[in-house]
Amino acid sequence: MENVDLLLYNAGQLCVVPGGGAAQRGADLGRLGLIENGAVAVRDGRIVAVGPSDELRAEYSAGMLLDAAGRCVIPGFVDPHTHLPWMGDRADEFELRLGGASYMEIMAAGGGIMSTVRATRQASVDELVAANLPRLQRMLAHGTTSAEMKTGYGLDTESEIKQLDAMHALQQQQPVELTYTFLPAHAVPAEYTGNTDGYVDRIVGEMLPAGAEWMRAHDTVLFCDVFCEEGVFDLAQTRRILEAAQRLGYRLKVHADEFAGLGGTALAVEMGAVSADHLVHTPEADIQALGRGATIAVALPGTPFGLAHHDYTPAKAILEAGGALALATDLNPGTTWCESMPMMMALACRYMGLTQAQALAAATLNAAFAIGRGEQVGSLEIGKQADILILDVSDYRHLGYRYGTNPVQAVIKKGELVVGP
Amino acid sequence: MENVDLLLYNAGQLCVVPGGGAAQRGADLGRLGLIENGAVAVRDGRIVAVGPSDELRAEYSAGMLLDAAGRCVIPGFVDPHTHLPWMGDRADEFELRLGGASYMEIMAAGGGIMSTVRATRQASVDELVAANLPRLQRMLAHGTTSAEMKTGYGLDTESEIKQLDAMHALQQQQPVELTYTFLPAHAVPAEYTGNTDGYVDRIVGEMLPAGAEWMRAHDTVLFCDVFCEEGVFDLAQTRRILEAAQRLGYRLKVHADEFAGLGGTALAVEMGAVSADHLVHTPEADIQALGRGATIAVALPGTPFGLAHHDYTPAKAILEAGGALALATDLNPGTTWCESMPMMMALACRYMGLTQAQALAAATLNAAFAIGRGEQVGSLEIGKQADILILDVSDYRHLGYRYGTNPVQAVIKKGELVVGP
Repeated sequence: MENVDLLLYNAGQLCVVPGGGAAQRGADLGRLGLIENGAVAVRDGRIVAVGPSDELRAEYSAGMLLDAAGRCVIPGFVDPHTHLPWMGDRADEFELRLGGASYMEIMAAGGGIMSTVRATRQASVDELVAANLPRLQRMLAHGTTSAEMKTGYGLDTESEIKQLDAMHALQQQQPVELTYTFLPAHAVPAEYTGNTDGYVDRIVGEMLPAGAEWMRAHDTVLFCDVFCEEGVFDLAQTRRILEAAQRLGYRLKVHADEFAGLGGTALAVEMGAVSADHLVHTPEADIQALGRGATIAVALPGTPFGLAHHDYTPAKAILEAGGALALATDLNPGTTWCESMPMMMALACRYMGLTQAQALAAATLNAAFAIGRGEQVGSLEIGKQADILILDVSDYRHLGYRYGTNPVQAVIKKGELVVGP
Repeated sequence: MENVDLLLYNAGQLCVVPGGGAAQRGADLGRLGLIENGAVAVRDGRIVAVGPSDELRAEYSAGMLLDAAGRCVIPGFVDPHTHLPWMGDRADEFELRLGGASYMEIMAAGGGIMSTVRATRQASVDELVAANLPRLQRMLAHGTTSAEMKTGYGLDTESEIKQLDAMHALQQQQPVELTYTFLPAHAVPAEYTGNTDGYVDRIVGEMLPAGAEWMRAHDTVLFCDVFCEEGVFDLAQTRRILEAAQRLGYRLKVHADEFAGLGGTALAVEMGAVSADHLVHTPEADIQALGRGATIAVALPGTPFGLAHHDYTPAKAILEAGGALALATDLNPGTTWCESMPMMMALACRYMGLTQAQALAAATLNAAFAIGRGEQVGSLEIGKQADILILDVSDYRHLGYRYGTNPVQAVIKKGELVVGP
């Protein structure tokens, strides 16, 4: 018998979510590769075998045998769009919004994102780490094993770099694997009110080079992202920033079509961005572009839900065009504070019309491709990192159907049991 | 110094939610009686003092000192409308509904509630207890310390009584305090298809008397409830059942206006029902009746959310009419499977326009009055049962603002620490 480190067996349903090296596109979304009474064998933190329990138990001896007791086993969730790390909260602003003020009105009045920017600028790296570690722990408890984080609450060079330093420190202190995105183009800071082009000059001339230096010093690759939106950065400004970033070695992401469709999604596809995110008011031509390009469409259903809006990402149109759809939380203190990917699946089923199987593939395999990690995580395929969840139910269709509670009983990250059972 | 069993102190915010013996009605809803750095003293499971920490620490010595460390302390949640206990799940039906079938269509085709009835009829009391205990534990973990449960998945005398027996057994096995409702008029069983009046005859002639006998044998009071709805029980049938129940000593509840406004709410007020529940398509005259009567309006925002409908209980109109509004989960396998009252608050803030403070009072004090327990639980007033939550945040406004995760760090039931910290 061959020896492995971990053999997880007796999974009532084992959802492989196979991609064969690619995201699930169009009508293919929701292929789970379901194995009844399945098992997965892990060595050196990687998956070496997946199949029926009886076959794997006959083939492998294991340092650690884990009995899933008939429960459902799925890949760890990947959350490809969060705004961690931030300081403070905006519970007061939420109260105001219940009184009728809109997000853009609160932002125009210097509230909203600017109050988070003020708090984040004042914080030290240690304070940022202390405030954001519990949020990451909550994500992990709800099954997120890889996540993206963004700067964008600094909006000056020093504070943006400080956010990167905080991410790096957070990576050392907990098991959720982090991807870093540089987003000085998240908003126009008060110092540049009425002079957005001046701020774009600074982003291109000073901030992106500083981020690129950080990237080299930390031997990693950063994403660069831009909030392409009416009243924030227009399409030409977005293009200018992304082109400069691409020249400096960043990979690209775009916040597009959250409130208005400016063409950010088509630009993302044209420039080979890894993802275009939000996509609520996306023009038909841009939806068609998603079907032709490699860019992943990242839906953030928590954001319209958080704002009590009725418009969500047109998932069916994107799939009909042949696009690849992923889900993320957009975790942030202004529009949606929810760490749970299962909750996003519940929203996607109700408001985007996804089946539970489609939502699951969008929250795992496709979400991994949305942060350029699809070759390493997001499915239970041989060779991938062993990021695995045991649910407290035997049927994956309880995901999406039930909501507001945590269906995750145990979390395995790189082959190590890091939460429960 | 006077001695008490428990002194919980150092609550950054202590939310009393005072009622002075009544629910909070109309513009009064949301009065929290907030004490900064508050404390609460408990003897024999009851609250004997509430006030500033320094005063209570000077006045009382305690067998158990509990430091809330600046966190927010609130009354235990009361969930006044659930459909526990049931057997099975309807994850497959949820998948169908995502494909476009309506709840009433699935029900008309013999699916929906009838599949739960079949499973519940086949189950023994022990099986019902085993299946529903984890649901109650999940409710408790999310801060529910008192809850209502209903029959209504039996629809014959023996199976309805079996559901009551299961409730009684569940009460012995866990700390959430249960209120029992008899609901043979939940649906018309297959045996009586096309003969609703025949089923009403049986309810009135056989089932209600059997429930009344159970009531006497168990020395308790049951609620009787009717699903007053198009295609289920009409207004005259509802009145007939409720009048018979009242004569037998039941207290009354009504499922009204979930899909169509048939006058069930006005009937509830007229007959002095303790609550009228759902109230989505409630006629204006019925809303005005709520303002004049004692009947509590119970909103179940999980139900339209679960069904992805856009219409919610018209909370503002009910409050403007002077009504008393409560929140509940409607926990059931068909339309909304969520055990969390904090999730209901998040829905109520977004889709019913309640402030966090209003949602909190609706989920505690008013919810207690909705099951006739307002004199005993639902607030941190002197003389009440010590059902108390410690949240993992310092500001109650995180309730409603954040969603999809569990904000409850510790649960005290009748003065005993039953969950965490």
